[in-house]
Formats: sequence, structure tokens, C-alpha cells
Amino acid sequence: MKDSTYPSLLLENAVNQFARLPGIGRKTAFRLALYVLESDRQFAEDFANAVLTLKNEVKRCRCCKNISDTDLCQICSNPKRDSSIVCVVESVRELMLIENTASFNGLYHVLGGVISPMDGIGPGDLEISSLVQRVEEGGIKEVVFALSTTTEGNTTAYYIARKLAHTGVLLSAVAQGVAVGDELQYADELTLGRSIENRVPYRL
Amino acid sequence: MKDSTYPSLLLENAVNQFARLPGIGRKTAFRLALYVLESDRQFAEDFANAVLTLKNEVKRCRCCKNISDTDLCQICSNPKRDSSIVCVVESVRELMLIENTASFNGLYHVLGGVISPMDGIGPGDLEISSLVQRVEEGGIKEVVFALSTTTEGNTTAYYIARKLAHTGVLLSAVAQGVAVGDELQYADELTLGRSIENRVPYRL
Repeated sequence: MKDSTYPSLLLENAVNQFARLPGIGRKTAFRLALYVLESDRQFAEDFANAVLTLKNEVKRCRCCKNISDTDLCQICSNPKRDSSIVCVVESVRELMLIENTASFNGLYHVLGGVISPMDGIGPGDLEISSLVQRVEEGGIKEVVFALSTTTEGNTTAYYIARKLAHTGVLLSAVAQGVAVGDELQYADELTLGRSIENRVPYRL
Repeated sequence: MKDSTYPSLLLENAVNQFARLPGIGRKTAFRLALYVLESDRQFAEDFANAVLTLKNEVKRCRCCKNISDTDLCQICSNPKRDSSIVCVVESVRELMLIENTASFNGLYHVLGGVISPMDGIGPGDLEISSLVQRVEEGGIKEVVFALSTTTEGNTTAYYIARKLAHTGVLLSAVAQGVAVGDELQYADELTLGRSIENRVPYRL
């Protein structure tokens, strides 16, 4: 859709705003803006309100920095969770993915990103000192790194490991290996090599 | 993403609102809501504002009912356009598609939909009487139907043709370059442009 043909600047502005969202191109943005235009006023108000409220009123859990409506999030305040294990994740995205696996019963610590000098993100921009403080306060036996296996993720894990060294806490990281359900012939060499090095006892 | 796992009702509400948009599933809606959460406050405000302003302040051209920021739209107020030919379209979507073909130099009339008893849309819900009035006022030699070649589109063209019969205006329809049964909004520009150039007399 050529920009010069928008019949209204208000429409063009709305298209521009929708197109700023990730994965939304100009054609989709135009379709979404027209949908708003053609739906009833209540929808536009509910929609705009949900976006504003989300940004302005959502809280961060004072313990794990997960987003929450309450001072202490549902996970941190759940007495059935094992508070001696803390899983370190980049964002609430990964936290929710791990929660959906139902394979982890400990608590979390949301960093809010990974160390990335290219993007100007240093350790001071992340929730690292709050993690170190949590561990120093005691009660935590193990810290699990569930970070992306990228340079940035590895750097961040290394940095945190150094910062936690004096506490003597047990450090671990999610296993790297062949994905469940994958054909072995399509696994990349690095992953395959790692999965052989880290082989585990076979259980019948 | 299972709904029970959202760590915040505000987040869940925002996901629900995004998921109401056409073509946006719950996974994408979650990604968009998180993007809003992670971007700066100005973005959320600009975005919500654009949506609200679009819905509340956009005008309809008093002549052709196209959306417009002004009382008379850019097309109707352009002296270089041929005001003796009026192209009847369902919505601003089709109008913009035709404008992008650069194959049509006349004016438009935006119906705001097509007759569709299944959806409870009758002739009275559409801008048909305003079209008849425009033609009756004189100066219009030809009315071109650029409606979807669906039952609803055909019914609408037929209804309007009957309503315009007494004026003696020349009726035409986009050529059947558009595949029968296709929605007009999905036609490619070349086919759409060709179909307007080759428009044929409309037969009752």
C-alpha cells in the first residue's frame, strides 16, 4: 500500500503505529487499522485502554522481577514451590514457556534482558545485583541458568557465575542436546557433539 | 500459551484485546502485548492514542463517503478527476486498491458494505440513497460497479442498478478479469487495473 494514497492522516498515523509492532508489516497494519475503524467505538476504547493500563499499571514482583498485579507474584507467594532453587531467565516470555512445561517447581529470577554491548546493555541495566542479593540472603541452594545459548546468553551466565562465586551456591544450566522428536541426521554438528559429551545414563 | 499461566490479569486482558484483531492468534497477541510492555511509555501512549483518534475523529467525505480528514475528500476535491464517472466500492479498502492501480481517474462512492441478509445488512444500512441522489443531481454519466463477484456483491449491484434505472445513467461493471467467487480485496493490482479499464455495460 503506497503511503501517498492514504485518504486520511489519522488512518496513516494508525497504520504507522500498528506497523511498529514486531512482525506486523504495512499491509497487515492497514488491515488492522481498518478493522478498528469498522468496529464499534467500545472496541477501540477497550483496546486502547488495555494497552495503556498494561504499560502504566503492571507491577514487577519485588522478589523475582516477574510481571505481576501484586507486590509478590503468584509464583513467589506459592508455598508449594521449592524456594531453594532459582531459575534465571531473560524475560517473562521464557518464564512462561518453562512454566508451561510443568517440569520446574522452583522460583525464578527475571533479568530483563542479557548483556549485549552491541545494543548498549550492560550488567547494570539488568536485575543481576538483585539476584546476587537474593542468593546472599541465604536459603537458595541452586541457581539454574535458562538463558539462550547465544554469545550474549553465555556472556551473561558467565558474568553472573563470577558474581555468585563467593556465595558457594550450586550453579547449573539447562541441558544442551538434540531436540525431542528431532531426526538425528538433521541436528547441527555443534549440538550433536555437545549432546554426546553430555550423554546421560540410559533408563529402561 | 495456556491462559491459566499469565502472571498478570492486566497482561491477560491486553492479550485478549490484541487477539480480537483479525488474523492475530493468541500467541501473536502475547508477543505484541509483551512488546508493548517492554517498549517505552511513549510508544504505548502514541499507539493507544492513534487507535482512539482514528475511531473518534476520522470523518467521512460528504460526497463519496470515503474516510477523510476534511469535509470533502482529496479525491472529490481534486479538479483533475473526471467527476462524470463514479466508481461504486464496498469500502475504503477497495477504493485504495483501485487508486493504487492508477487505472481510474473518476470519483468514487463508498457503500460501507454490501447487501447481506445473513449478516442483517439491508440496503438501508448502506450509502445507496446518497448515491442515487448524487446521480439524480446530474453531472454523472457513468456508474461503474467495482464490487466483489460474490452473491452479496452481485445482489448489491443489481439492487443499485434497479434504483438508478430511471436516471438513464450508463451502468458498467469491472470486467470479469477478477475470478468469479473471489473477494475483491484479494485481487492483484494488475488484474484489478485491467478489469476497470475493460469494464463492460451492466445488464439487468
